[in-house]
Amino acid sequence: MSGHVPTVPAPTPLLEPDLLAADPEGIVEVGRLVGELTSEAAKALRRRGGPLPPLTPVELAHVVDAQLPEGPLPREGGGRDAVLALARAYASYTVDLADPRAAAHLQPPALGVATATDVLASAFNASVDTWDSGPIAVELESRLVRALTALAGYGPRADGVLTPGGTASNLQALLIARDTALRAQRDIRGEGLTGLATKPIVYCSELAHFSVARACAVLGLGEDAVRPVPADEHRRMTADALERALAEKTDEELPIAVVATAGTTDYGSIDPLPELAAVAERHGMRLHVDAAYGGGALFSDRLRPLLAGIEAADSITIDLHKTAWQPAAASVLLVRDGADLTASTGLRVAYLNPDDDGAAGYDGLLGHSLATTRRADALKVVATFLALGQRGVGAMLEACHDLATFAADAIAARPRLRLTATPVLTTVVFRYIPAGGTGEGPADAARADAINGALRRRLLLQGRALIGRTDDVAEDATGGRVRLKLTLLNPQATRDDIQELLTAVEVAGRAVETEELP
Amino acid sequence: MSGHVPTVPAPTPLLEPDLLAADPEGIVEVGRLVGELTSEAAKALRRRGGPLPPLTPVELAHVVDAQLPEGPLPREGGGRDAVLALARAYASYTVDLADPRAAAHLQPPALGVATATDVLASAFNASVDTWDSGPIAVELESRLVRALTALAGYGPRADGVLTPGGTASNLQALLIARDTALRAQRDIRGEGLTGLATKPIVYCSELAHFSVARACAVLGLGEDAVRPVPADEHRRMTADALERALAEKTDEELPIAVVATAGTTDYGSIDPLPELAAVAERHGMRLHVDAAYGGGALFSDRLRPLLAGIEAADSITIDLHKTAWQPAAASVLLVRDGADLTASTGLRVAYLNPDDDGAAGYDGLLGHSLATTRRADALKVVATFLALGQRGVGAMLEACHDLATFAADAIAARPRLRLTATPVLTTVVFRYIPAGGTGEGPADAARADAINGALRRRLLLQGRALIGRTDDVAEDATGGRVRLKLTLLNPQATRDDIQELLTAVEVAGRAVETEELP
Repeated sequence: MSGHVPTVPAPTPLLEPDLLAADPEGIVEVGRLVGELTSEAAKALRRRGGPLPPLTPVELAHVVDAQLPEGPLPREGGGRDAVLALARAYASYTVDLADPRAAAHLQPPALGVATATDVLASAFNASVDTWDSGPIAVELESRLVRALTALAGYGPRADGVLTPGGTASNLQALLIARDTALRAQRDIRGEGLTGLATKPIVYCSELAHFSVARACAVLGLGEDAVRPVPADEHRRMTADALERALAEKTDEELPIAVVATAGTTDYGSIDPLPELAAVAERHGMRLHVDAAYGGGALFSDRLRPLLAGIEAADSITIDLHKTAWQPAAASVLLVRDGADLTASTGLRVAYLNPDDDGAAGYDGLLGHSLATTRRADALKVVATFLALGQRGVGAMLEACHDLATFAADAIAARPRLRLTATPVLTTVVFRYIPAGGTGEGPADAARADAINGALRRRLLLQGRALIGRTDDVAEDATGGRVRLKLTLLNPQATRDDIQELLTAVEVAGRAVETEELP
Repeated sequence: MSGHVPTVPAPTPLLEPDLLAADPEGIVEVGRLVGELTSEAAKALRRRGGPLPPLTPVELAHVVDAQLPEGPLPREGGGRDAVLALARAYASYTVDLADPRAAAHLQPPALGVATATDVLASAFNASVDTWDSGPIAVELESRLVRALTALAGYGPRADGVLTPGGTASNLQALLIARDTALRAQRDIRGEGLTGLATKPIVYCSELAHFSVARACAVLGLGEDAVRPVPADEHRRMTADALERALAEKTDEELPIAVVATAGTTDYGSIDPLPELAAVAERHGMRLHVDAAYGGGALFSDRLRPLLAGIEAADSITIDLHKTAWQPAAASVLLVRDGADLTASTGLRVAYLNPDDDGAAGYDGLLGHSLATTRRADALKVVATFLALGQRGVGAMLEACHDLATFAADAIAARPRLRLTATPVLTTVVFRYIPAGGTGEGPADAARADAINGALRRRLLLQGRALIGRTDDVAEDATGGRVRLKLTLLNPQATRDDIQELLTAVEVAGRAVETEELP
């Protein structure tokens, strides 16, 4: 690598034998440079005090200004030294998800084995759109998808595709629903929606992910195509509630899909899949299950029953970059009948997959995806399961589930904290109760909301404890809607770490209250 | 890593101290494992005979069957040995883009520096959607995007976003066009397209990328919203041709955008941007420039003039995973007025970026993107430019451009090959002329097409020369439409490599002709 990233601007960078990652010499140098970068990163990590840098966004911007005096696209290169300095800064100022006090988002600490193996995906830069742009990458994705359909309980007609995220998987699922539901009336893919008298609508829990509404906007259905169904006291969309919502539809509206959630972002609640499947079938709607979060239960004997009935879904979103601890992106859309998938995205292109090549068996996954170039994200996933097995990955989810149960009990035992809901998966939603302000009434509620929001930002600024926040769907007896949240995805976190996080919340809450005083 | 990927099924994988990539111990182990994986990959690369494995797709499937006896998701893990075996197989059976005889697709050999630095994006698994899910990652993407807007000639109102690919960038550009063009009539994002009497339509060259039609299908406009404009003899959409197409629109049709191409996939041809910008303005359409391929010219003094006038575009797609030699994905959508971008995708979500956090400066890029979780793809790009500079990256494109010019001359000098078009960027389209069949007429043309298709598959099977193919828009005097293509993206390839590729084409062509005989 001594030549690869020259320390002085190189007059002839193209002559460096190790410029390209996939040369035999180049890939050895990639290994060497990764060794240096990770060594620098380890040093930076050891100097850190917590999961976030203890800086305001403005202060961080100044740090990055200093790091990039000529901006991110300098005219002349600074070689290896510039890259190592960037690595140090990155490791110092990124979020550190492996810190057991990081508990904000559905963003897990990545597995080392997945991270390391993914280097080969980048180095060889295969793309799964055509066979000759990534032969073994196409094979690995096809096999991974088929294995996941089998785990979900699907039959031999099932198919699927990796996508860049749960939002993209949900978009493609609703694209399929749109094109399928209206097929008898019109070829939507070919002719579009304008002039159509029917309004396609989509039902989902009021707690469903915002990507459902976003998908409807992108697909031309409009955000108003979403019919949010009130959740029950367990934060689930029941079949009865769905039926009540369906009873209100007008004659111009055509229900095309119900999106059930297997793991709501905040509460981890799982809609009753078999009952919703029955309603969907009765009304001729597709059932899509957004298991972006809960899908990891497929790998755990103990938690798999939470997904009972998922095989009745027409399609399923699973984010392996959530509960299979992959670095993003590794979402997957599974479809019970692969023909539905290719009806919306099937494609033959002269320069990629002409008919005669397809007939000769040279076919990639272009027609499965909304993307064209698509990296070999299956490689890291397959490497992870070959290394740890389903049992190893499932055990990680079980450990986080145990932590969530413990955290709920710990919260219940602290008078200044109030648990909002019993955990289902690995999140715990609660609230800080300000001193002298627990009574009902709008003033108290607004103050409590402000204090909860401010205490989280105080923690962000200190950088030693990173928790999530959200709004509850309704006020509870403590007033207000702002909630705090632990999203527990570090299987190595301990009960002491949880207690430390909760104490940090209480301390920050008291400090915010104190600062309120004139 | 000795514990991280255990060699026997581990009863307690969660106790391994180096399980997670971002632990100080874990990241050192990532470096060590990458060293082993790349060393195995180098050995496999040295045993290879060419850019593709010399196997049929069916034979490759058997190889992978043997590699994964329990499938890709075994119940018990096989530890480190299983991962190393996977790496060996992957390096043996992937496409090797660093082989100078790989010249099929717009899929470059990845730079070592980008590949290596990207490990930190995976290891820390930051996401740019919220500030606290990736503070420095948000900063790096924002700065990279702004620097690219400046290079494109945009002013201070410009903005942009990284996307998973050119197809996604074009989709988002047309989403913005759809929502913007119809804003006066209707809030499309909120209310959708159904019932709308107006048919939005999109103009582009007949040689534009298929992602334009795909985007129209996804967006609910329908593939029939695309109005392909005939290209001129230089394979460009001229202003006159666009005006002629516009003259044919009906009163119910509303032109919302013209998509100009700066680098058609097959020919590299670049539509005349200033003239098309004038037409777009005259007709009140947005101008989107698909510079997925040609965008890399921004980094080369010599080739930058090809993009003259690009600053008049309302939006621009640039694929840094094409002509900036990044591993996928690294596409970027630039928008001249950032307000247009956020009008379509702006979003506040209680659990990610609530108003009070935004007011306090804690804001991520959620509202810029159609994705939610989004990895730190800017890191590898910034590392590349810090190391090599614009000058180093631009020199790579210049080298490939020189190779294409050489290849065109070499083709012209070979009687059995016929050049289809003069190269503009780094592709060269040509045709193999069968012996005794160069006369015009449908039978000759069909035979020549079949021979050109078959000779490419013969090369695929042999694995020693990987070239592209496509269909020309029209037959030429040699008959038929199937063309062969060199997509030259290896800056280290030599003129001898080019000659070797062309000789391989001729040899394969003769062999196919011989096998035709009864």
